[in-house]
Parts: sequence; C-alpha cells; structure tokens
Amino acid sequence: MDDFIFGTLATEELRLRHIRSLREGITHAQRRAPRDPLPGQLVSLELTIGPKHPQQQAWAYWTNDGSDPVGQNGQAQNGYATPLIPIDAEWDTLVWGYVRRFRGQIPGQEPETVVRYRIAAGGPGGEVYADEGTFYAYYVDNDPPPDWTRDAVLYQIFADRFFDPSPEFPFTEPKPSLKCNGTLRGITAKLDYIAGLGVNCLWLTPIFPSPSYHGYDATSFYEVNPRLGTKEDFRQLLDEVHKRGMKLLMDFVPNHWSNQHPTFVESQKNKKSPHFEWYTWKTWPHDYKTFFGVKTLPQINLRKPEAREHVLGAAKYWLDFGVDGFRVDYCIGPSPDFYAEFRRVTRTTNPASWTFGEAVDPPDSQITFEGGMDGALDFMLLEAMRQTFAFGRWDARRFADFLDRHEAFFPETFSRPSFLDNHDMNRFLWVAENDKRKLRLAALCQYTLAGAPIIYYGTEVGVSQERDMIQNGRAIHEEGRLPMPWDASRQDGELYDYYRGLARLRHNHLALRRGTRQTIHADEAVLAYRRADGADSLVTVLNVSANPATLTISIPESNNHFATGLDCRVESVAGKVKIHLPGYGGVVLG
Amino acid sequence: MDDFIFGTLATEELRLRHIRSLREGITHAQRRAPRDPLPGQLVSLELTIGPKHPQQQAWAYWTNDGSDPVGQNGQAQNGYATPLIPIDAEWDTLVWGYVRRFRGQIPGQEPETVVRYRIAAGGPGGEVYADEGTFYAYYVDNDPPPDWTRDAVLYQIFADRFFDPSPEFPFTEPKPSLKCNGTLRGITAKLDYIAGLGVNCLWLTPIFPSPSYHGYDATSFYEVNPRLGTKEDFRQLLDEVHKRGMKLLMDFVPNHWSNQHPTFVESQKNKKSPHFEWYTWKTWPHDYKTFFGVKTLPQINLRKPEAREHVLGAAKYWLDFGVDGFRVDYCIGPSPDFYAEFRRVTRTTNPASWTFGEAVDPPDSQITFEGGMDGALDFMLLEAMRQTFAFGRWDARRFADFLDRHEAFFPETFSRPSFLDNHDMNRFLWVAENDKRKLRLAALCQYTLAGAPIIYYGTEVGVSQERDMIQNGRAIHEEGRLPMPWDASRQDGELYDYYRGLARLRHNHLALRRGTRQTIHADEAVLAYRRADGADSLVTVLNVSANPATLTISIPESNNHFATGLDCRVESVAGKVKIHLPGYGGVVLG
Repeated sequence: MDDFIFGTLATEELRLRHIRSLREGITHAQRRAPRDPLPGQLVSLELTIGPKHPQQQAWAYWTNDGSDPVGQNGQAQNGYATPLIPIDAEWDTLVWGYVRRFRGQIPGQEPETVVRYRIAAGGPGGEVYADEGTFYAYYVDNDPPPDWTRDAVLYQIFADRFFDPSPEFPFTEPKPSLKCNGTLRGITAKLDYIAGLGVNCLWLTPIFPSPSYHGYDATSFYEVNPRLGTKEDFRQLLDEVHKRGMKLLMDFVPNHWSNQHPTFVESQKNKKSPHFEWYTWKTWPHDYKTFFGVKTLPQINLRKPEAREHVLGAAKYWLDFGVDGFRVDYCIGPSPDFYAEFRRVTRTTNPASWTFGEAVDPPDSQITFEGGMDGALDFMLLEAMRQTFAFGRWDARRFADFLDRHEAFFPETFSRPSFLDNHDMNRFLWVAENDKRKLRLAALCQYTLAGAPIIYYGTEVGVSQERDMIQNGRAIHEEGRLPMPWDASRQDGELYDYYRGLARLRHNHLALRRGTRQTIHADEAVLAYRRADGADSLVTVLNVSANPATLTISIPESNNHFATGLDCRVESVAGKVKIHLPGYGGVVLG
Repeated sequence: MDDFIFGTLATEELRLRHIRSLREGITHAQRRAPRDPLPGQLVSLELTIGPKHPQQQAWAYWTNDGSDPVGQNGQAQNGYATPLIPIDAEWDTLVWGYVRRFRGQIPGQEPETVVRYRIAAGGPGGEVYADEGTFYAYYVDNDPPPDWTRDAVLYQIFADRFFDPSPEFPFTEPKPSLKCNGTLRGITAKLDYIAGLGVNCLWLTPIFPSPSYHGYDATSFYEVNPRLGTKEDFRQLLDEVHKRGMKLLMDFVPNHWSNQHPTFVESQKNKKSPHFEWYTWKTWPHDYKTFFGVKTLPQINLRKPEAREHVLGAAKYWLDFGVDGFRVDYCIGPSPDFYAEFRRVTRTTNPASWTFGEAVDPPDSQITFEGGMDGALDFMLLEAMRQTFAFGRWDARRFADFLDRHEAFFPETFSRPSFLDNHDMNRFLWVAENDKRKLRLAALCQYTLAGAPIIYYGTEVGVSQERDMIQNGRAIHEEGRLPMPWDASRQDGELYDYYRGLARLRHNHLALRRGTRQTIHADEAVLAYRRADGADSLVTVLNVSANPATLTISIPESNNHFATGLDCRVESVAGKVKIHLPGYGGVVLG
C-alpha cells in the first residue's frame, strides 16, 4: 500500500514539471522577505526570469490604498512602481539555461495597511506579468498567533458522521446522499466525551447548507445546513463549547462552492446577472473554472471585489457569531492576494481568532501563507510520522533529522497543527495494519512536539477502516469517514484513556507546548528529544522498531511520567538513565 | 539531425540524475568564494547535506604545506580544521526533503601557497567526506590571463590530418590505423598559409608517441610521436611559429594515457611495480579505472604524488621547451586538487603561458576551473551559435539574451576561447547543410565577441563532411577529421579571404578584443550589439533569418567596415542608419 497524501505533487513527474515551470517562467512565487512585515519594515521582492524569456527589466506595481495596482513600462497608473534590479544569472542544468535574478524593495508601511502588488518583466518580448498575472498582497501588522493557540489540543469532527441522539444515527442513506444523520445537537450532546479527552478546541467540517453530506459544496456561506440543525443549534453548541473553556473552529472554503449556489445558478442562466463575474467562464454557460475539474464545484472569482467581499463577509459574520477561527480548505486555490484581506478581516473582527490553511503541499508552499493566516496544517510532519510510525520506512535517525530540519525551516510564530490522518486519506490505524502500539507511539510523538495536536474523530477509540481508500486508482472517501461508533463494545476505552493521559501530560507541561526541542539521541531504532521551557524539562524516548531496545543516556530526567505501556522500564544505573522499551514503545521522562 | 555536444549531460535523464545526486548527497562541488583567491583573501566554503543524511556537523580539513589534509571529528592531524556552520535548511521539491546548508572560512594565505582541502560531515551516521572523498585545492596568487591571450586568434590543427610535403599525404591507412601521414614538418611548411589567415596562435592535437593516429593515448608525455616527426622537427616548428610572432599550444591529456604506456604495462604484469599505484585498480590486473570504460585508456591516479609529479613534470618540460601553453583535454577527469599544482607549475615555469580546459559541461562546471587554468573552451556559446546560425532553432532575440546572461555569468578574467566546431562533433558547415552564408554569419559573430576565436583546420576553405558523424548511435569521428585538402580546386579561396578579413578587423580594433559588449537591438530576425573600448566602437548587425531584413537604428556608427557579402547595404536616413541585410547577412559598422 502506498500512502497518497500530496495530490498535485504526488509523483516525481508532477514535481519535476512544477519545478521546471517555476525555473523556466517569469516567476515571483511569493519570494518576499519578510513575508509578514511589521509596520515600517522594508519588503524585498525577488523575481527570476527563465532562459527563454528575453525580458531584461522588471518592476513591482503596488498600492497601499486597497486598489489593484495597474502600470505599464515601469510607470504606475495608480499607486507606485518600484524597479527590480538584475542581481545575477544562475546556470540551471535542469532547464539547461541561465535563470536571471532580480530584486527590489517596497518601502515600510503604516500599521493595518494592505499592500497589493503585481510584478511585471519588460523589455524585448514585451511586458509580461510574473506567475501568469497573479496578484499578491500582504497585510502590515504585528500579530503573532494568539497565545491560546499554543495550548490547543484539537478534535476534528466530520459533522455528518459524528452523532445524533435519535435512532436515525448512524443510518447511511443510499447513494448519492450517503448521509449518516449526524447533527450539531449530536455534537453538543457529546461535548463532555470530547472534553474528557483533554481537547480544548473543535474543528468542524463545513456546516453550511449543501447538497452533499460533506458540505464542501456550500449553497450559502451565511447559513447552517438544515440537515445538521438550525442556527440556534449552532449557537447552543458554541455556547456549550465556550462554557467548557473550549474553542470552536469552522471549516472555511473560500475557493469554491456548489453549482447550486444561487449566484451560480443565476449566472449560468443569464449573462447579465450581477454575479456573472463571480465566476471564471471559459465558455459560458457550461465551461468554467472549477475545483479540479469537478463541475459541481465552480471556483469563486475572488479577484472580483464583490465576490471577495461576500466571502470575507462570511468570515466576519461567523467570527461575530462567536466562532474562534477557521481551518481554511484548499487554501492554495484562491488568488494569494485574498489572504491579506482575509487577515485584515479576521484580525480586526476578532484579534484572538486562529486561522490556518489546508495546503496539501510541501513546506516551501506552506510558508507562503505566513502573514495571511496564522499557519498551516503540517502535511510534511504528517508524511514523516506515517513513514516512520505506520509504514516503518524511515528509521529513527532519519525521522530525528527531519524534525531538526523541519523545525529550522519554519518561524516559531507559524502555527503547524499536527495530525496523523484526516478525512481525505486512509486512517493512520489502517495503514499501521491496525497495530495500536504504532498508533500509541505516533500519538506520543505528536503530543510531545510543538504543533497543536489534532485528533481525527474516532482515532481515540480505535476507529479504523474496512478497505483501502484508494481502489482502482479512485479515492473511496467513505472508508475514512465511517460513522463514529458509540457502542461501548466498539470503543477501545484503554486507548481513550491513553489519549486523555497524553492531553493531561501536555496541559501540565509548558515545555511541551512552548519549549525548545533538541534531539539528544538518534540511532536506527531509538530517538530521544528534550522539550524544555525554563525549569520544566521533559525527555521523550521513542522506539520506532518492532524489536525491544535499550537506551542508556546521561540525562537528569529520570522519572517515568508517561509511557505507551507498562512494559516500558526506566532505571538509574551508575548516574545514567537506562530505558528499556518494547517494540514500538515510548516513554516521557521528567 | 540532433546536435550531440554534451556527453555526460546530453539527455534530460542524465541531467536530472546529476542534479539529484548533488542535492541528495553531501556536496561541496567546489562552491567556494572567491574561487581564485588573491593573497590574504578569506575563502568561504559551502556544503549542502541532502535529506537522507543525518550528519549535523561539518568541517574543512586543510593544509597550506602541500600535504594531503587528514582529520577526524573536527580535529586536524596535519594542517588545520575549520568548522562549517549550519546556515539554513532549504526545502527541495525535486528530492522531496530539506537540504541543509553549511558555511565556513579558510583564512587568507601568503602568495604562491597551495591550499589543499577536503570537507567532511559528521555527527549521527558517522563521519563522511563530501563528494565521495574528493580532494580540492586552490593556488593563491594574483595572475589574470597574460595580456597576449586577449589578442589571440587560434587555429586548431589535427596533426595527423593537416599536411606533409611528401606524396604519402593524404593517404589513409586501412583500419585500425587510419593514419593520414600528416607531420610536424608539414605544419611548418604551411605556417605562411596559417599566418595569412591572421591566426597568431596554433593549437596542435596531441603530438606524443601513441599507438593511435589521434594521439590522445600517449605512451610518453616527454617525447614526440615518431610518425609525426622528431623532437628537432618540433623545435623547428616552434621556432618558425615564434619567428612569425605566433604562439603554440599543445594538447595536454592529464587524465589518461595508453595501456601501452610502460608504467601501465609493467604494473599490469607486476603488482610490486613502483608504478602500481599510478592506476586505480578495481581488480588487478584486468579491471581498472579508465576514460569512459575504454580499456586502452587507463586513468592516471593523480592522487599518487609520483604520478602527479610525472604529469606536472611534462607540463614543465614542454613549457621549458618553449611552448606557450596548453589546451587541457577532458579536464573534468582529474581530481580537482590537481589544478592548483598545475597552476603553480605552469605559472612559475612560464608566467606568460596560457592554459584552458576542455570541459564538455555547462557553465557551472566550467567556472570551477577558475584559478586552476586561465579559462575553458566555451561549449555553451558553441551550442548557442550552432542552434542559432546552423540549425536556425533559436531566433536572434533568444541568442542576444543568451549572450547577455552568459557574459554576466563569467568573470572577465576567465578566458573563453570560442569555436564553431572541433574534432569531436559534426563540422559546423555540415550541420548548416553546407550553406556558407550561415558559416560566414556565425564566424562574423564569433570574431566580434570577446572570446578568442578558434578556427578548426579547413573551415576557412569550406571543408565539410560526407556523412553524419553519429551513425547508429555511434560517433564516426573520421567524418569530422578529414585530411586537409590542399588542392586549390578543393579550397574555397573567397572563404579564406573572408576569414582573413575577419582577423584583420579583429586585430585592428581593440574594441573587439577588449571592449565591453552591449546588445542594442534584438528582434526575431536581427540582432545588433556594440563593442566599445574608449573611442573605438563597432556595431555588429546580424540577420539570423533566411529572409532579407532591414533595421533602422540611431547609432553614430555608420561606416560599413566589414560585411558577409556585397549585398549588405547601409544608408543614412534622417539622422538614422538604415541597414539592409539579405538572409543570413551581417555587417560591422564603425
């Protein structure tokens, strides 16, 4: 079984094509430093021009009044034009030619300014916009993620599949509905169960009205799906969540919605519709930009100010309603300039809100969302944890080294919520061949790293699958979205307690939430790292191999605080600590 | 017909494998700044460690006393150890992981110091040498290429194929010899012919004793091939060359020689031979390192000091004999540290000597020879000129842009002798479908660019081929190495005069040899650039298309100094210059 995580860059061929097009083209690709400028900070922009483009000059056209920058031949029509100066030409053997580099600076700006910019190359060959005309923007402020987000332990709920108190749940309607009858009231009813896990933040998959059971195809961003409940039900859920000191994040889907959305239905009927330009029509009425060619999911043209305001308005609406932030679906879809406004709206509406993106992409893409959101779901760590703990393809040394590099790559102020699986892939337990030792070990690792851990509903009681999610090359999502089993006989209570213990450990130790991390040992089988915050210091030791392993190490931490099981032993020998771990065993010492 | 120039990087697959191995490995690859340090200059070294290598520390072990550096765990056994410090981790989508960068500095050194170094990475996974243990070195001095080299016009003579006064020439012996009976005396006899071309520097393919007609498989580096003549004949040739104010470069082949070389014959018979370690034996006596797997061409182990001294001694011997420098065959073969000693020997023996390498490689490899030699044959320009002028695949704009980038990449002090063809590829005229207009235009370009132009013997009188050199995937070198035709009926006298005129133009204008170059016009068909040195200023205008073209341009230069033919017209119109060019026509204005 091969893991399938990275969609658009899943194969070597796709990766190569991607790199080639970046290096061959007139490319900015958000190479900007700093990415998230403070008030008054200069911003340096980089552009590369591939070997076949004869353009020899470059400019950034930019505004700081919210308007789209327009310019020609280095002259701004509104706002400003800043020349980008040629720095050097790098030989690139891959594209077999010289790639020319240019650099220029946008001066520092006042707080709460949205700078919109676009880069153009000119000279022989005519003026051409970088990245096929993409508009970029950044929001000038000083706003690291709110403090509470560093203490978060999250629980992802697939709304339709979680719970309803009626006997209708979990009934699976026949295709195409596949609806299981989960409701918002059902979630409210189970809040104590969730809180019992030590979770303090919910992430709900979309609850907007939609023809599908999953909700990623909304027909309104301002309403609640009647099948899930009423707005009052949602209000009640939110109140109960907050009453317990928990937070709630909504799934926000700015890139696309349903082809049954009234604005789309109307525009498809009538070219004169005021919403006609909310879509990108290739040939009206039947050919238009969509999410991955899915006709039922038209892409929203966020470059159209009214459409953008409508989508941003929804973010404001729900923050005003009381939600605590958003997980932003397919965040690589919208034009990058969308996120400066998104940031402005989310931060000015609720300065304590948390937003992070779902970019199923490598780190160099993830990092481009710095400043537009608080962070991004940590897909690379996901891959590394699955390779190491589920598949056993990476040894402990490689995983340790990955952690070192990965953490060095991202700034500390970039949230990287961690997860072992989600609704778009095989469950961790399934790829781990239902070996719960592997899950326990992976979760121990997850809870002792800096990123806020997310539990995908059911994992805490051992929910797995019946079949592989990829069959005949197609994803059968249902496999990873089975209804939550509430019958005690189908829940692994020990595992629940284990997860509960992990959260308790994390909540008790600032070191695990805010501390530095240092790898202190790595061999093929065993990895050990220290998390420390002042006097609070914990050492996590993980045996990623199937065989028992022993590690003797000189560390002051020798108290067994937490372990994957009773068969993990720690003893003091001649001033050193000797740790005996069974296969897939792990322990936290303090 | 596809052009076949870049051997080891000829296909996309080979290029990709090359890049991948650099990015995945523990790689220094001579990333050193400056590459050719002046006395007292700090040298910064860069190392990258690919995602699968867990090493987290790095050191450069180095010496300045000529000994090979040895060290372990950051401790030098001789010389010094300098730590390389981690700078950052770059995400690399191609190798799907983080590539870590390290940097460190070697302090400035006294003049005429050879610094030898080797880089190692250590920590988890153990200590590993960068680039599979490659030794590097640089020579500290302040020695740009000698002044005369910037005025050079070269002529490449394939010694066996050029001339002998006897009726034996050109008789082609049957295979395997294929010898044509050219001699050194023959070359001497034709010096006036060569000088008549305005050539002031000869490059002779190898004249060492060897079993083959081509001489790249020497049996001695200290003798002359009796088939070509005696050492006295060579002395006489050299004297006659110098008498005419010309220079002579030998072909030097440090990487390999014949399996009939006495040291090899002896070592293959007897493991106790004092020369046993001059070779790299995989399994003695029949498996050893060779030039591209050719058993008759064993690679010389230049890491063995005695072998290195022997080869360096030959360079010294011939410089003392009176030759003016070397074209270094397959210069990417020897260990890179060889070139620091090569530089020391060539420069201290004859400070006015000229050395340049044959690296059939892209610019990022060419540039690594900076400091070890004066420069390298300009293979990228060769490719660009053939694509533009012979194949018509690049338009004028692309070629102009290439020139701009190419010249920006190399320092001015790096010699880049230019050529349209050589003995290892199809002749230019052949790939240009024997269209002499294309050859004239390409040569006009070649002679008006900065690099010293090289004529491959015979091109000046229209020598072409009979068949393609690549047949059934194999190179038939004979096609590009036909004996020089001396019968007047087989020589194109007009073309000879054209070449003679080109050299005269170049010799008359410092601007063409030393001036700056600026592209002043480029469209699809026509390219114009100015070469200027103080008041001396010339504009070259080239029509690379098959159709007539007109260019009207505001330049002070309006005198027609030189043209590809009489059908190029220049007129002054309203203060501008209007240039009428036939297809493949070109003109130089001043």
